[in-house]
Amino acid sequence: MSRSPGRKQENHKISRELFVLTYGALVAQLCKDYEKDEDVNACLDRMGYSIGIRLIDDFLARSAVKKCRSYSETADMIAQVAFKMYLGVTPSVSCSSATGNEFSLILDKNPLVDFVEELPAERASLCYCNLLCGVIRGALEMDRLKGDAVTEIGITFLRKPEDRKHRRNK
Amino acid sequence: MSRSPGRKQENHKISRELFVLTYGALVAQLCKDYEKDEDVNACLDRMGYSIGIRLIDDFLARSAVKKCRSYSETADMIAQVAFKMYLGVTPSVSCSSATGNEFSLILDKNPLVDFVEELPAERASLCYCNLLCGVIRGALEMDRLKGDAVTEIGITFLRKPEDRKHRRNK
Repeated sequence: MSRSPGRKQENHKISRELFVLTYGALVAQLCKDYEKDEDVNACLDRMGYSIGIRLIDDFLARSAVKKCRSYSETADMIAQVAFKMYLGVTPSVSCSSATGNEFSLILDKNPLVDFVEELPAERASLCYCNLLCGVIRGALEMDRLKGDAVTEIGITFLRKPEDRKHRRNK
Repeated sequence: MSRSPGRKQENHKISRELFVLTYGALVAQLCKDYEKDEDVNACLDRMGYSIGIRLIDDFLARSAVKKCRSYSETADMIAQVAFKMYLGVTPSVSCSSATGNEFSLILDKNPLVDFVEELPAERASLCYCNLLCGVIRGALEMDRLKGDAVTEIGITFLRKPEDRKHRRNK
């Protein structure tokens, strides 16, 4: 853990505007780099995955949460603790499968798209916020993503990860 | 102005960790895109400039500061109000020229380099935080940048900008 114990909570915060504009610069750069939206989406997901792998330790250290005992508890944890802590918003969670392993996180107001004008028509398949999906995937080593009019992030739990599996990637 | 008046202050905040890792992904992508450090630095500066141009309105709206009457007052404003507001840190300011138009902002602890390991040897000329210089330049339409062991951002005021000049770029 890289946290110094006396660090004030306030120091963990950055203005959303700066973050949103910096993220916008990242997406714009990827759009320059890759012609196909699919490639931009995949790259955002990969970047997010790498971020999630590193962020999970920070999350566990700062949230001091207990191990989740079910997929449903995990989805709630992501929405109510992780999203709140990292993005300052709390998505609502709905379970979208009878088998109880698919969830949607719904953000009425997506903090990443402030300042963002309409995406150009030729970028219709761009999942602008795909980084977040990658972050969740990286943090939990899970899968399955989907975007919509309100921002909806879908999570399908494919298998229960082995204990402390994410640590292999440190 | 895009602010809705009733929005809570808390909503303006994002976790520093997420920002730092996202910024790291941006720099890493540019390092893939450009072989020369100078090109990465220039790109970060350009991106920062675009961000600064957009951020200045947010800053003026939220800080409600009065017009600065001197270069020195402007440098203090950047350090004490803008850095605090956007990055949660307050650099110290020193005037580094007899003519009073060059200033250094010194950050003992740079919030952008948390999590960042050593830069690889072949990237020795990379100005990792050059985005910040671009943001300042964009916000103020100024120039002159320099990095160091502590993070030092140099500002040289080349001329007094015309009133509301930044609005031309909106």
